Amino acid sequence: MPVWLEAAVGYLAACLTTGAFVPQVWYCWKTRDTRSISLGMYCLFCTGVLLWLVYGVMVEQWPVVAANAVTLALASSILWLKIRDRQVKP
Amino acid sequence: MPVWLEAAVGYLAACLTTGAFVPQVWYCWKTRDTRSISLGMYCLFCTGVLLWLVYGVMVEQWPVVAANAVTLALASSILWLKIRDRQVKP
Repeated sequence: MPVWLEAAVGYLAACLTTGAFVPQVWYCWKTRDTRSISLGMYCLFCTGVLLWLVYGVMVEQWPVVAANAVTLALASSILWLKIRDRQVKP
Repeated sequence: MPVWLEAAVGYLAACLTTGAFVPQVWYCWKTRDTRSISLGMYCLFCTGVLLWLVYGVMVEQWPVVAANAVTLALASSILWLKIRDRQVKP
């Protein structure tokens, strides 16, 4: 298996799993609708992504740090919108 | 940095980012409510996780394969519930 192909699949996978959160942030931001979003999921997911970021720093893998920093920004935006929504509609 | 600490942070991160989807699957399954779930997010995310799984096979990293197989099962359940919901309520 050529190394460039492995790297290409890995980078495409990282772009998709990070970029996937953009349409969800856009929907929640535009509509203020987070009713079906699980608060538990985003609490666990943001903590996990933060730990992936810490792991990336520990093993000095900067692509891991960069991808998880972007994912953390997007996922924590959804978490923030969800928490705000719960305060508005208790 | 001790290797066991790096490994512990990595495994905890993987458990959290995979396990995070459990409360979302549970909510969508129980309530049949997927209104605020972005179809675009789960299409992109499932494709990305499938590519991570392929990447894991290519580089023979079985923990990557295992974690992404579980994540794919959970995320594609949410995608399936979302698609079914759209058909019921167009």
